[in-house]
Amino acid sequence: MIAKSMESYVKGSSAIRAMFEEGAKLAKIYGRENVYDFSLGNPNVAPPEEIKQSIIDILEAEEPTFVHGYMNNAGYEDVRNTIAQHLNKLHGTQFTEKNILMTVGAAGGLNVTFKTLIDPEDEVIAFAPYFGEYRSYAANYGANLVVIPPNLPTFQPDLNKLAQSITAKTKAIIINSPNNPTGIVYSEETIKQMAQILTDKEKEFGTDIYLIADEPYRELAYDGVSVPYVTKYYKNTIVGYSYSKSLSLPGERIGYLVMPDELSDFENIISAATTANRILGFVNAPSIMQRVVARCINSAVDVNIYNKNRETLYNGLIEMGYECIKPEGAFYLFVKSPIEDEAEFCNMAKEHRVLIVPGSSFACPGYIRMAYCVSYDTIIGALPQMKKVMDEVKNGATKK
Amino acid sequence: MIAKSMESYVKGSSAIRAMFEEGAKLAKIYGRENVYDFSLGNPNVAPPEEIKQSIIDILEAEEPTFVHGYMNNAGYEDVRNTIAQHLNKLHGTQFTEKNILMTVGAAGGLNVTFKTLIDPEDEVIAFAPYFGEYRSYAANYGANLVVIPPNLPTFQPDLNKLAQSITAKTKAIIINSPNNPTGIVYSEETIKQMAQILTDKEKEFGTDIYLIADEPYRELAYDGVSVPYVTKYYKNTIVGYSYSKSLSLPGERIGYLVMPDELSDFENIISAATTANRILGFVNAPSIMQRVVARCINSAVDVNIYNKNRETLYNGLIEMGYECIKPEGAFYLFVKSPIEDEAEFCNMAKEHRVLIVPGSSFACPGYIRMAYCVSYDTIIGALPQMKKVMDEVKNGATKK
Repeated sequence: MIAKSMESYVKGSSAIRAMFEEGAKLAKIYGRENVYDFSLGNPNVAPPEEIKQSIIDILEAEEPTFVHGYMNNAGYEDVRNTIAQHLNKLHGTQFTEKNILMTVGAAGGLNVTFKTLIDPEDEVIAFAPYFGEYRSYAANYGANLVVIPPNLPTFQPDLNKLAQSITAKTKAIIINSPNNPTGIVYSEETIKQMAQILTDKEKEFGTDIYLIADEPYRELAYDGVSVPYVTKYYKNTIVGYSYSKSLSLPGERIGYLVMPDELSDFENIISAATTANRILGFVNAPSIMQRVVARCINSAVDVNIYNKNRETLYNGLIEMGYECIKPEGAFYLFVKSPIEDEAEFCNMAKEHRVLIVPGSSFACPGYIRMAYCVSYDTIIGALPQMKKVMDEVKNGATKK
Repeated sequence: MIAKSMESYVKGSSAIRAMFEEGAKLAKIYGRENVYDFSLGNPNVAPPEEIKQSIIDILEAEEPTFVHGYMNNAGYEDVRNTIAQHLNKLHGTQFTEKNILMTVGAAGGLNVTFKTLIDPEDEVIAFAPYFGEYRSYAANYGANLVVIPPNLPTFQPDLNKLAQSITAKTKAIIINSPNNPTGIVYSEETIKQMAQILTDKEKEFGTDIYLIADEPYRELAYDGVSVPYVTKYYKNTIVGYSYSKSLSLPGERIGYLVMPDELSDFENIISAATTANRILGFVNAPSIMQRVVARCINSAVDVNIYNKNRETLYNGLIEMGYECIKPEGAFYLFVKSPIEDEAEFCNMAKEHRVLIVPGSSFACPGYIRMAYCVSYDTIIGALPQMKKVMDEVKNGATKK
């Protein structure tokens, strides 16, 4: 028998599998190119050319027992130093390799962070809509996830509600900007206000409140919008980063945590996080990929491709009468469902071979998410279909 | 402040760091080649040549968004199928890709298994001496680790004590053959008897008792000794495998779980384990390495190199009067400390520039572990030093 804690997941994952299988069935009937799948955040843009060449260079130039071997559980020192210097150049920070811990993607980094910080019954605050996995990550360590309701229609974090929600048990706040699923970016003013609230509340309760900035989409920002580097505004900040999107390497599971010197209990946190990386079974981030990202430190995928998708899909949908905040980053559109029951709307879209995800997966019913990290052809093909769905809605033809 | 559960780890890891730093200090004074480090299981033998070539071939032949992209959380289907067929050829089993889940090494696989099976207060049984991390992995999910004391001097599992230790709360038994730290291999007869005990106890208590076979050293067996494939003897078996040792890829974090159709609650276990892989933050095993191990399915490191180390170190130490069971597998020698306090003995060895690990790290005080996955020169250089330590012991010159 499986663990009781896994039972609800198993039920949930059969729902996802059912959706996936229906998508596969549609592809079989209509051809894969005629099914418009916006359900997953799996980048369609190829990794930069340098990735391939750097792997080959590493294999040619470096000792295989070194390249594929164990290193310090925190990662290769030279890799961590390269990343620290890169961040310092970009953000005017003062990091060294001591502040960087290489992780198995951002998901691994968040689990390491929670394992490091969380005692059972601690509270972790998240702003809806949020990446659904946060709930699982918090539950893994016995934390209670306290959810701040969506701040419609801007989706900016509701800072008044944040202040009201913090208690003596609040161990961490998790933020995600650029955001999945909304694509919004937190402004410098927002981060400053948030920092002030957290500082005040730390004093009020005599506690440490850690701000966890989950930033896999940092490099995907449009229209020249700037994404503030959170450690500069609040001392108890831990940044989780991933190369899954910025270098299109999601399957390789490579990312890092930034833990600044200014953290309360810094030495213990570094030591505990390195240990957590080991005892959770990650041990270390995949070794050759650590060396690859260091060699490709100045590389990035071509954001223009995503930007073109963003403009075309956003403008197309708005023209049809859909309501949606224009995303400033990431590669998601969070669209208001034109009917109340967004799961029903997802079904209607599926009938027209467009696969999208209900907002309830992100603790925000009444909306749907479209991941536009797809080919441009998929965007072009999907638009007339989305038009048909809207026409059906307008004709009141909701399907039972 | 870090989580309370991490505090003891942080203390422990500063002890390890102190040892590591002392080793580095010795290396600085005497030169790295004059410090004989047997403390870590980091393979010294290079990966087979095919690894490098297969990586290059994959980069040349396959689509980068496929090679570096997300796949099913359980791993690429073709990779899992290749592994299943390989196991079937070797062991006469009947696995398909459904039975294989690709993991972030064996450590990742064991965490996925525990997350899948363990409810808080469940009992997991381990035989001392055991790989110390089992205690952390069990603790991660709230399990109580029930330790069966060492069966001296053979280190074969004590099956009578196993039978006495199983209760209605026993969820799993973990075994590790070839064994870290002793190098012993469980015979077919042992596995058969163990299977009978577990089957009887399942009936007695009306429970499922899962046998977790942690097998990162399966391919490292000497003198033609055979390592029984445990799924053939007991239906509720889950095998954890890693390529860390067989292909010398420990930093790459690549391995798999085998979950046979015969498992009680098979469908739910597969589904829960795939979900656990995701929510624990692994998401999937590193993608390019999945494809590499499938291409190199018939490759293995040259075991003769380890065998030569084994013979030379074992024979040398026995000749000096050390007592030690001759290992049949893995790359560890578990030597009886010639003085009662083995930590003191480790200090004496360190004075002679030989770094070894006390048996108390494996729940077996009075012994020490030497990892002989080192260069042959290290073996040759260390032997005269170990002789000096033995001479000191014989002269009663234990150091304060």
